[in-house]
Amino acid sequence: MSTLFLRTLRDDPADAEVPSHRLLVRAGYIRRAAPGGFTWLPLGYRVFRNVERVVREEMDAMGAQEVHFPALLPREPYEATGRWTEYGDNLFRLKDRRGADMLLGPTHEEMFTLLVKDLYSSYKDLPLALYQIQTKFRDEARPRAGLLRGREFTMKDSYSFDSSDAGLDASYARHRDAYIKIFDRLGLEYVIVSAMSGAMGGSKSEEFLHPTEIGEDTFVRSPGGYAANVEAVRTVVPDPIPLDGLPAAHVEDTPDTPTIETLVAVAQQLFPDEGHTAASTLKNVVVTLVHPDGTREPLVIGIPGDREVDAKRLEAQVAPAEVEPFTDFDKHPGLVKGYIGPEALGKDSETGIRYLVDPRVVPGTRWITGANAVGKHVFDLVAGRDFTWDGVVEAAEVLPGDPAPDGSGPLELARGVEIGHIFQLGRKYADALDLQVLDENGKLVTVTMGSYGIGVSRAVAAIAESTLDELGLCWPREIAPADVHVVATGKDAAVFEAAESLAQELVSAGLTVLYDDRPKVSPGVKFKDAELLGMPTIVTVGRGLADGVIEVRDRRTGEREEVPVAEAAARVLDAARR
Amino acid sequence: MSTLFLRTLRDDPADAEVPSHRLLVRAGYIRRAAPGGFTWLPLGYRVFRNVERVVREEMDAMGAQEVHFPALLPREPYEATGRWTEYGDNLFRLKDRRGADMLLGPTHEEMFTLLVKDLYSSYKDLPLALYQIQTKFRDEARPRAGLLRGREFTMKDSYSFDSSDAGLDASYARHRDAYIKIFDRLGLEYVIVSAMSGAMGGSKSEEFLHPTEIGEDTFVRSPGGYAANVEAVRTVVPDPIPLDGLPAAHVEDTPDTPTIETLVAVAQQLFPDEGHTAASTLKNVVVTLVHPDGTREPLVIGIPGDREVDAKRLEAQVAPAEVEPFTDFDKHPGLVKGYIGPEALGKDSETGIRYLVDPRVVPGTRWITGANAVGKHVFDLVAGRDFTWDGVVEAAEVLPGDPAPDGSGPLELARGVEIGHIFQLGRKYADALDLQVLDENGKLVTVTMGSYGIGVSRAVAAIAESTLDELGLCWPREIAPADVHVVATGKDAAVFEAAESLAQELVSAGLTVLYDDRPKVSPGVKFKDAELLGMPTIVTVGRGLADGVIEVRDRRTGEREEVPVAEAAARVLDAARR
Repeated sequence: MSTLFLRTLRDDPADAEVPSHRLLVRAGYIRRAAPGGFTWLPLGYRVFRNVERVVREEMDAMGAQEVHFPALLPREPYEATGRWTEYGDNLFRLKDRRGADMLLGPTHEEMFTLLVKDLYSSYKDLPLALYQIQTKFRDEARPRAGLLRGREFTMKDSYSFDSSDAGLDASYARHRDAYIKIFDRLGLEYVIVSAMSGAMGGSKSEEFLHPTEIGEDTFVRSPGGYAANVEAVRTVVPDPIPLDGLPAAHVEDTPDTPTIETLVAVAQQLFPDEGHTAASTLKNVVVTLVHPDGTREPLVIGIPGDREVDAKRLEAQVAPAEVEPFTDFDKHPGLVKGYIGPEALGKDSETGIRYLVDPRVVPGTRWITGANAVGKHVFDLVAGRDFTWDGVVEAAEVLPGDPAPDGSGPLELARGVEIGHIFQLGRKYADALDLQVLDENGKLVTVTMGSYGIGVSRAVAAIAESTLDELGLCWPREIAPADVHVVATGKDAAVFEAAESLAQELVSAGLTVLYDDRPKVSPGVKFKDAELLGMPTIVTVGRGLADGVIEVRDRRTGEREEVPVAEAAARVLDAARR
Repeated sequence: MSTLFLRTLRDDPADAEVPSHRLLVRAGYIRRAAPGGFTWLPLGYRVFRNVERVVREEMDAMGAQEVHFPALLPREPYEATGRWTEYGDNLFRLKDRRGADMLLGPTHEEMFTLLVKDLYSSYKDLPLALYQIQTKFRDEARPRAGLLRGREFTMKDSYSFDSSDAGLDASYARHRDAYIKIFDRLGLEYVIVSAMSGAMGGSKSEEFLHPTEIGEDTFVRSPGGYAANVEAVRTVVPDPIPLDGLPAAHVEDTPDTPTIETLVAVAQQLFPDEGHTAASTLKNVVVTLVHPDGTREPLVIGIPGDREVDAKRLEAQVAPAEVEPFTDFDKHPGLVKGYIGPEALGKDSETGIRYLVDPRVVPGTRWITGANAVGKHVFDLVAGRDFTWDGVVEAAEVLPGDPAPDGSGPLELARGVEIGHIFQLGRKYADALDLQVLDENGKLVTVTMGSYGIGVSRAVAAIAESTLDELGLCWPREIAPADVHVVATGKDAAVFEAAESLAQELVSAGLTVLYDDRPKVSPGVKFKDAELLGMPTIVTVGRGLADGVIEVRDRRTGEREEVPVAEAAARVLDAARR
């Protein structure tokens, strides 16, 4: 440690929001270098390389083959799949000296597809799984939480290629198993949740979420084992109700009811026996969709009044279009702010504005909703009888207690960090880039693909976050920068000699050792540093040496033991191999 | 090999100029992905990682510490040192979503300087050596020769920090020694040549050049051991000649002598006894300097008529300004094309154009040169008597047979590829970015730095180039993708069983094995592939198996040996450990 490029800090960095970020900076593992860009310092880079090694070993073990693409890529392949545009502001674009458009790869589906097309031509060549561990670039709107969401980060991305759907299922399952092994080895708790595939296209997709309060992703789970991220939760749809015998719709004066709360109060006053709640109302929310080509479209979402629109769920549904607040009431006089009703909505209506409704709006359901006139609402407006819609949308928030779609019980909500993501892309990229192989009958078939990602740098932060304690970082042995931290205290030359000799012995036995040989640093500072840095075993050579003992301490449990000098190495080796 | 992601090609790729590039593509090691950007395929990436490992081990062994910076960097630090501008078109620049200027790091002096400034403050913290192995980006005007000059490539860049000049000398020497070890281990021949530091700034600098005809760099060496790249060669300056008694200058009619050749012919006619040659003439060459701020300046270089201006030498002298041809004779009527003479040149002359001369132009030398009038030259124009100059410039080409500056004999010229470069940067970056530490007396001193680079991806190409033969690639053992290539030929199941069992035995013994288990590929194709792919040892299990023998072949020497099956593994292990 007298020569290690390291300065531990007493104070939290001003811009660090989450504990792992604070400690990784304070312990000298990383340092901010650019907005959303971090430098790995020596100890941090060791952790990073250890995580990388685990990922590489398991990818190799599952039969995936490692390649490495450039990060700076030509525009054309991304143009062919539409992602040059769809990625929007998240893509770093640039021009080279000749004016050619280039991009910094956010993920490499296109390039892998073209590479396989270049080399392979027969179903006999498949299945194939390729991977790379590479720097990725995304111009995030809000880089945050240190390594958790950066603009430059390291990802293991892999891709599978199959000639049949069954083959894709098998490739997907192999990756899923490999991911389970990787996160188990990394000691990183995870929940596998159903996910939407978003901008990736394709069909089946699951995320490995590490549950943590600092996570950006919300997911749900049920007692019966259902788990999904909120974007993927399907609403349990009620049965339609026969229209016969339902009361006729009637418009009522409801002055000063711009909110659901005020409207429910008036409804209860007008019809005290009906038991109206917010769930009796149908709220019509206007948003603006911005399509990738720049065109803007107003859209109305009809959802029960007891729920808000969940921006992430809506965005997942309308991607690659983006959602912005609607402000153009002036241009659409048919929309009466605060009193918008279904009868003015839909492609075939007078406004011509597209109208999507919550899945709970099934034929026969009765609603209190806007009557398209200031101060007026319509009651007993029956879906499928009095109004129609252009489609159904999963945009309403999921609430705790909502039923799981598979009947496995009420949902609870939790937060997590996405540490892995596996997709069945299907034929989207192979179609766009014309990747076909000859099948058994000599016929050209389009290849079906999977795409699989692990955030390597993010995993470092997630592991730090899940293992740290009030004293500092606390690394699992598999990825710690060193197995053992040997601390020599005091000024006695014999102490330093004994400590160095023990350190050498441990290194000879195959352990990695961080040795605190700093001559003029107080024992208190050395202990604090050892706790902050978080090696799994801390060995102190100090005053006890006069009595022939050395202290061996487990960083996680805090258990300490005084061990005779001659037995110290064996005891430490034993702890390291446990 | 039945599952390896590999297709060997019979034909050379159309765009490959050099043998290593052709073979790396044909053998399925790399594949072009973008202009100046290559994808590493599985075998190629293994070679890459082996080279990386050797570099890392030796950097660690010399006490350098590994860190890792982002590649996408903010403009400000590069603005502070002037390199944002000086790098010109070679720098990839882009804007992020907020419009902030960013760049893709071509090299990281600024970032390392700022990092050390951030953490260290005392001379006691020094010396320090940090390194990273990282993707670099340079928008080369002419990417060429595959991995030899790409726009995206991997470099090991390291930096040393010292508080004294003596410390820098020691850090520089340690790096030099480490580089020698690295290139020795990689089996890569090199010449260490004196170099100019160019855009890096700083003082002492040497290059490790791998001698090869396909190299872009020209260097010189003498029988006595002097070696330098052409940019760095210092001309041996003759002693000045006393002015007393020299003949007076005289203008002569020299019609139709726009070239040196025609001028010498006329001079020999006019003065047959003087023995005039091209070296008697002083040629004044006009160029345009383009300064980093965009201003354009005419400049005249006066050199002996028997030499041309060497563009690289001139550029190295005027950097960061760039050199363009001069075309503005219209705007400068004082410059008489073909007959420009020293008397019209210099800052204090009527033209006001800066005039730099070759070091051979010392006081007392007599020249035939332009008389600033069409068809007229002046003879016996004496330097220091009849004309002066604004400075001296090393812009004339170096010719074989020129004397080495250290008196070690005549120079020979050769070509090479730069595989390593070591610089004494001095205080340029520390000054610009204010990196100071407290010295022994509590006084702030500016840190002095070194910068050291190895092209990791380029080294792969250089090794391929220097080891290939007419059959294909031929890897040194330390960096080969596998130690052994086991080839099973024919259709006999016993052959495949024996081959697989041998392969397993070799793997268990710690070797890496490439096993050609392809069932329907002819022996001829398999042998050709094995030769093309270039593992150091090729083992063939085929017909001989019936007689109890296996063939073990050394790829480099071609030596073959029939070995009894039971002894085959031992023989191969022996070869691998030799």
